[in-house]
Amino acid sequence: MTDFTNETDDRAYEIVGQIEGILDALNLGDRDSLVAVLEEMHPADIADSLEQIEPDARLRLLEYWGADLDGRILPDLDEVILGELIQGLSNDAVKEAVRNLETDDVVDIVEDMDEPQQERVLNALDDPDRAAVVQSLQYPEDSAARLMQRELVAAPVQWSVGDLIDYLREAGDLPERFYHVYVVEPNMRQVGKVALSRLMASPRDVSLTELVDTNYDPIPATRSLSEVAYAFKQYHMVSAPVVDDAGRLVGVITIDDALDVLEDEADEDIRRLAGVGGEESLNDGVVATTRQRFPWLVVNLLTSILASLVIAMFTSTIEAVVALAVLMPIVASMGGNAGTQTLTIAVRALVTKDLTETNKRRVIWREINVGLLNGLMFAAIAGLVGLIWFGSPILGAVLGLAMIGNLFVAGLSGIFIPLGLDRFGLDPALASGVFVTTVTDVVGFFCFLALAALILL
Amino acid sequence: MTDFTNETDDRAYEIVGQIEGILDALNLGDRDSLVAVLEEMHPADIADSLEQIEPDARLRLLEYWGADLDGRILPDLDEVILGELIQGLSNDAVKEAVRNLETDDVVDIVEDMDEPQQERVLNALDDPDRAAVVQSLQYPEDSAARLMQRELVAAPVQWSVGDLIDYLREAGDLPERFYHVYVVEPNMRQVGKVALSRLMASPRDVSLTELVDTNYDPIPATRSLSEVAYAFKQYHMVSAPVVDDAGRLVGVITIDDALDVLEDEADEDIRRLAGVGGEESLNDGVVATTRQRFPWLVVNLLTSILASLVIAMFTSTIEAVVALAVLMPIVASMGGNAGTQTLTIAVRALVTKDLTETNKRRVIWREINVGLLNGLMFAAIAGLVGLIWFGSPILGAVLGLAMIGNLFVAGLSGIFIPLGLDRFGLDPALASGVFVTTVTDVVGFFCFLALAALILL
Repeated sequence: MTDFTNETDDRAYEIVGQIEGILDALNLGDRDSLVAVLEEMHPADIADSLEQIEPDARLRLLEYWGADLDGRILPDLDEVILGELIQGLSNDAVKEAVRNLETDDVVDIVEDMDEPQQERVLNALDDPDRAAVVQSLQYPEDSAARLMQRELVAAPVQWSVGDLIDYLREAGDLPERFYHVYVVEPNMRQVGKVALSRLMASPRDVSLTELVDTNYDPIPATRSLSEVAYAFKQYHMVSAPVVDDAGRLVGVITIDDALDVLEDEADEDIRRLAGVGGEESLNDGVVATTRQRFPWLVVNLLTSILASLVIAMFTSTIEAVVALAVLMPIVASMGGNAGTQTLTIAVRALVTKDLTETNKRRVIWREINVGLLNGLMFAAIAGLVGLIWFGSPILGAVLGLAMIGNLFVAGLSGIFIPLGLDRFGLDPALASGVFVTTVTDVVGFFCFLALAALILL
Repeated sequence: MTDFTNETDDRAYEIVGQIEGILDALNLGDRDSLVAVLEEMHPADIADSLEQIEPDARLRLLEYWGADLDGRILPDLDEVILGELIQGLSNDAVKEAVRNLETDDVVDIVEDMDEPQQERVLNALDDPDRAAVVQSLQYPEDSAARLMQRELVAAPVQWSVGDLIDYLREAGDLPERFYHVYVVEPNMRQVGKVALSRLMASPRDVSLTELVDTNYDPIPATRSLSEVAYAFKQYHMVSAPVVDDAGRLVGVITIDDALDVLEDEADEDIRRLAGVGGEESLNDGVVATTRQRFPWLVVNLLTSILASLVIAMFTSTIEAVVALAVLMPIVASMGGNAGTQTLTIAVRALVTKDLTETNKRRVIWREINVGLLNGLMFAAIAGLVGLIWFGSPILGAVLGLAMIGNLFVAGLSGIFIPLGLDRFGLDPALASGVFVTTVTDVVGFFCFLALAALILL
């Protein structure tokens, strides 16, 4: 995130201003001016407004607007709000709303719904669209098929540029957006793609096979979403064909869908590193939110009890030198922070595939050295703190030595724990944080108190 | 991030396999097979390979490949490696490498270079390209102008579809990729855009003004990158024109550039929340890495000393009941975790503009209630732990009460601190983590020890 400029503030107020317009119209009970405000807004902004206003205002808005509801807001709505909204609409309004959506948007809307709601939406679709959506839903939740749209332009391999232009000029039902035309054999096996910009620049009599780009791998329908998103980002792709097991063209994924996946993944990483359920939304209620966060806090309670057990081993030492109780959180806290730093770098590098078998050893070695170097510097500083505060050089030395030990272990665990989770096929973001801070707490308290017991007593 | 499937592993090994191919050829000193391996690879994968192999292998690779180097790898290279590479290339090789890059890629490459290197790259460009790059560099670092490419297709307002098609078929120097044609007045003021898909589907005699889409706001050249990226994501844009103060068309930003900005911002958020410098790369050395992480650890040291000062207020209490020293980290740790959960949700919601003036009060209220609810539940659990472990109902009660207080404060500070930073125009991710855990440490230790002093002694 970059710093917010004044301009940013203006735009944020613009959205807030739009929401105020909606609320004013609602308060006046003025349906016409409400519809006028909504018609001026982008569907994505309407979706955001619906999420941000109070539930009762939302209900009134839908009462007024329901029949004319713009279906394009649906894919941008939070799951909770979407469910509420579909619930409140008549069958006719649902039909009107989903009629013009692309199949990938419909899949996106219905895939997390419970069965009765899903049925209502599916029943609102035309037969061919319903068939396409149902087919996509048969693929695994995390697969490319869920992301692809069925709407695409395919051209037979024997066509020329002129044939294609004539076809496009006559076809009534073209996709809303497309950037490539896919060249296919009669059995729908895809041969390659032609960018519209190349088509536009080519004479009518050129054969499509002369223009076709075959220098890419089509995406298997079962490929995982994170792989698909990675490929879009890595290879700067704009759209890519999806093929079934037999190599037949079944759909197209466009970069804007990949962008959503990448954003979701980054969000999930951030949340998992912080110990928040990956699915939490700002629109969840108090109970749902508490339920999301509770398990992680339970894990944290157990690990902090583990740390307390370590402290409990040294109660007689602490009774003898109570300054130890004062200083011990410093060692643990520094280790936790240093470990989290290493961990965060490692987790993101694993996700973006910047950290692989090739450079693993080098990165591990770097982290060990960074841990030692930071350990030495903070040992000196902390030693001074101990000396000045309590006037005891030995206490300072114990604090310094414990710091070296814990920052070294922090570097080690910060890199080995995510690598280990990744090797076992687990998401390195998922539980790394709690593992790393458990290690640094336990090691921090133990090093400090054991050294003190050894040296001071 | 989604779970890694076997397929993912296959692909990761594929990259590792490619790198092995490179290393084998290098070890054999076999230039031809090296070039053959590189020619099979996507430039983005070559860039990643260069980053991941050892520095000496990288040098040898460049020695062999330098003169034929594919310039398309440059924009994908890490800053450190890019500097090394340009350093090692002859002027002719640099010229060859940058000749065919789009202007936005050249800007991306040179903007962080030191002056002498920047000069070398700029001198390698043709005059018009150099002028365009220099002009972009005169805009602020964080502005849309740095992201835009100069290469675009503009059409006079009086043209028909046929005029445009004829022009495109004759023009030799079209952009590598374009999805829209921009309709302009004679002074280059942009009127609107026409999607290629609409052009392709329209008869030759239709005027461009009939097809033109004007329903969007062009991006001012000075708009901040995060605003630009937000707009692409929010409005599902694919490309957008950039205009100067006078409304003249100066460039185009495409979604793949916006995607890079969004990824960088998410990365920065993750790193800042973990207290890692926003610019850290896996290719930094030990000293550079330590220097990045040191300041944050210093801040952490100071805040942990603050917490220790709170503990020091209660040394006589701890001397009397040493169990307090054993249990006190539990309260602090739970508060820190709960606060971080709230904070993370708040920071991301601010960045994605899901948290605004409209719903601020509701979210604050929710977090307060979640804090209280979790506080009550964990008070019961922790109270039991205290009771069972030390056989003291009063100790259990103190632990439970301190837990309620600290989880309540954790919720409060987790939401108010990022909101406060945001209000003062600061990045909420930047320092929130350290503020929140400082609050929860200080409040946690104080609540627990003060209650103990009050009740137990």
